[in-house]
Amino acid sequence: MDIRSEVLKRVKPNEDNIKNMNKVASELVQRVNKSAAKMGPNAHAMLVGSAARGTWIRSERDIDIFVLFPEVLSREELEQQGMAIARDVAGSTGKERFAEHPYVTMRFKEFDVDLVPCYDLKDTRKIKSAVDRTPHHQKYVEGRLTPQLAEEVLLLKQFAYGAGVYGAELKTQGFSGYLCELLILHYGSFEKLVYGASGWGLGKIIDIGKRYRDESESQVLFERQQLLVIDPVDPTRNVAAAVSLQNFTIFVRACQDYNKRASLNFFFPNKVIPLGPSELDRTLKTRNTRLFCLTFRSPDVVPDVLYPQLRKTEKTLTTRLAQLGFEVLRSDVWANSNAVIILELRVSKLPRVRTRVGPPLRMTVDRFILEHINSPDKLAGPFVDPVGRIVFELKRKQTSALDVLKDVLTERTAFGKNVAEAVGVGYEIIEGIKIKKLLRYPGFSEFISDYLTRCLPWYR
Amino acid sequence: MDIRSEVLKRVKPNEDNIKNMNKVASELVQRVNKSAAKMGPNAHAMLVGSAARGTWIRSERDIDIFVLFPEVLSREELEQQGMAIARDVAGSTGKERFAEHPYVTMRFKEFDVDLVPCYDLKDTRKIKSAVDRTPHHQKYVEGRLTPQLAEEVLLLKQFAYGAGVYGAELKTQGFSGYLCELLILHYGSFEKLVYGASGWGLGKIIDIGKRYRDESESQVLFERQQLLVIDPVDPTRNVAAAVSLQNFTIFVRACQDYNKRASLNFFFPNKVIPLGPSELDRTLKTRNTRLFCLTFRSPDVVPDVLYPQLRKTEKTLTTRLAQLGFEVLRSDVWANSNAVIILELRVSKLPRVRTRVGPPLRMTVDRFILEHINSPDKLAGPFVDPVGRIVFELKRKQTSALDVLKDVLTERTAFGKNVAEAVGVGYEIIEGIKIKKLLRYPGFSEFISDYLTRCLPWYR
Repeated sequence: MDIRSEVLKRVKPNEDNIKNMNKVASELVQRVNKSAAKMGPNAHAMLVGSAARGTWIRSERDIDIFVLFPEVLSREELEQQGMAIARDVAGSTGKERFAEHPYVTMRFKEFDVDLVPCYDLKDTRKIKSAVDRTPHHQKYVEGRLTPQLAEEVLLLKQFAYGAGVYGAELKTQGFSGYLCELLILHYGSFEKLVYGASGWGLGKIIDIGKRYRDESESQVLFERQQLLVIDPVDPTRNVAAAVSLQNFTIFVRACQDYNKRASLNFFFPNKVIPLGPSELDRTLKTRNTRLFCLTFRSPDVVPDVLYPQLRKTEKTLTTRLAQLGFEVLRSDVWANSNAVIILELRVSKLPRVRTRVGPPLRMTVDRFILEHINSPDKLAGPFVDPVGRIVFELKRKQTSALDVLKDVLTERTAFGKNVAEAVGVGYEIIEGIKIKKLLRYPGFSEFISDYLTRCLPWYR
Repeated sequence: MDIRSEVLKRVKPNEDNIKNMNKVASELVQRVNKSAAKMGPNAHAMLVGSAARGTWIRSERDIDIFVLFPEVLSREELEQQGMAIARDVAGSTGKERFAEHPYVTMRFKEFDVDLVPCYDLKDTRKIKSAVDRTPHHQKYVEGRLTPQLAEEVLLLKQFAYGAGVYGAELKTQGFSGYLCELLILHYGSFEKLVYGASGWGLGKIIDIGKRYRDESESQVLFERQQLLVIDPVDPTRNVAAAVSLQNFTIFVRACQDYNKRASLNFFFPNKVIPLGPSELDRTLKTRNTRLFCLTFRSPDVVPDVLYPQLRKTEKTLTTRLAQLGFEVLRSDVWANSNAVIILELRVSKLPRVRTRVGPPLRMTVDRFILEHINSPDKLAGPFVDPVGRIVFELKRKQTSALDVLKDVLTERTAFGKNVAEAVGVGYEIIEGIKIKKLLRYPGFSEFISDYLTRCLPWYR
């Protein structure tokens, strides 16, 4: 069997799956409409997302129902009335969430259901919010996506999933389902997309709705991004805005490699084999890096709030360490009920002396000299080094990476609000092979094993 | 008293000094001529250098006598006959030296005398060797240097001496007396030179004899150099060829600073205060660097042969260390009967893991992947890092700087012949504050004190 058929065989929902999904979705739509009628507002339900377009993978169990309100309502009224309906439908099983806007999630007949209030805008130019865009995405895609193209979307989604870059949530920073659909509509098939994407470079622009005259016109509106896919229903929005530089590169590399040696491995890669305690021990000893694990209780916020803050904190820590001469080899974040920021350094102790280089020959050095000549931090200088640079040797304030970490964790600036608060309550820094004790955190074993044996999935 | 007068008062020879110098020089010239007449060759003596031109500083005790032979002689005959005369004049006090050509040095009435055989060439275009050029330098300068200009030369020489950049010998790599004379002839006075030189940049060209049409024509003949002063008697030669990038920069910085705040300090800077054993201890502990001193018996060669080899060896060691990830903060060389190469590292131990970065996104990674995917050195990868680079993590071969040093000292390639031989006989690597034991070497105390408190002399 060819790769394409084999993948579809494994991921395409069968008739029973589809019948069941449709039944559950219809029931939910009816419930929302009934609740709206009962409670008064002029609102109606709309099934959106992959369930609505037949672009869901068999393992996906997501149903997104949007509750559309007339635009005469204020944002406040909409949210109040919308959440009332959503709560009524979800009952006691519902959970209120808050990302950009409030919504309700519920578990319903083995499906994960989102109930999201939004405006029913006729004119797409009035769109101001992500949730109001969704019904228009639905209309745009359903009018264009043939059953054949829907299969191509399934292939692409599974390919992105296999490469680890599927999902626009901020934990993943990958390719959303809508982005996958647009890419297929633009390129015409999975194979053509893979061929095209293997030639993508940084700053790739795709204007599927031809909303701009040319690339330079579209670039004016957007800051330089790795991938710019202009939303055909709202030309001010980049559908690929969530895609990180890392995931963009992984996707392009996956396409380049698939083009040369296509295999099922791209869609269904081998899993990471968790390291046992003694293997973990051995691996850490072999790497012999200066390893620090910052750990604290996860703040009680959704992953879309938590992960950006964890990454921001990670960046703040690594930047400060690097600025002070402690080169970070690699770092990563992880969370369940506890959060971990792992920092792997090349060196954790530095000499007291550090070199400060002055301006080049053609520039005056007066200010540089005056700044340091009588400094209590001066150890030597000014002198000229063999390559002709004027330098001072000064005292480094901190010679230990651990002290730097503690300082930054005391300041807690540029951490994100919730992480700063959580760290303020308490944290621990665990060094070297002592991180073994974190194996008691459920899921940490998988994370640290993946971290230590990190590899593009299709090369595993 | 103004600076200029004060400097001249201290460095300009008085009438007695001059009378004595002239008497001794004349006596030596007569002795050479007498010896030549006695031994047969058609040769005659010529007093050259600062003694001949009245551009010597009172503390200088050098007399250079060249023995000129007709150009019909072969180089071999010239050297044989010339050295016979030189030996005859010097007697048992003479020492034979060999730099580019053989010559004899002697101590005579408190002067250091060089007796140097060379060709008496009428046509400067036939000049092929440094020693044959010298009589022409003598003629060029003595025809142009007024007593007023000679005073300017004295100021410049003392200024360069004060800045630590006077002397073209390869230990110093600085400004020769002849270069100082040409610069004064070109700029017209010490003050004008200092003003001009404070604007010098890398690649400064001075064509005092206007031997080239323009700078671009002269650049064709010379590789890019920091300072190109074309010899008016031989346009193929750069009089400033010996000046290192470091000394060029120090000189320009000295001129810039002197222009702003002229003082006697530039000419007569404070001396380095030698550190006592406990101060040395304290300084080393404060710097807290990973310090290695390589020491071995100096090979029995003149400084002009030894120092380039020591620097070459230093460069070989620092380059290899840096390539393998051990960043060198500073290094230096020193020698008397023992030689020392000092290496001060930021870090002497590194983790086993090292990162190998692959080609950028637009380039294929096949060869990069193939090279490492099955390597026994692979620890992780290929993966894509947060800034989108594809990387492998590989085993570092050497995690200790000391092991790297030992390896390079076993290979001894790119050391220079004599240093390689000397190191082959035996060496020691002394670490950290144990280098105190090198204080038993005469002069090492001054060197290490200067090294540790390094500072441009006029800022001391």
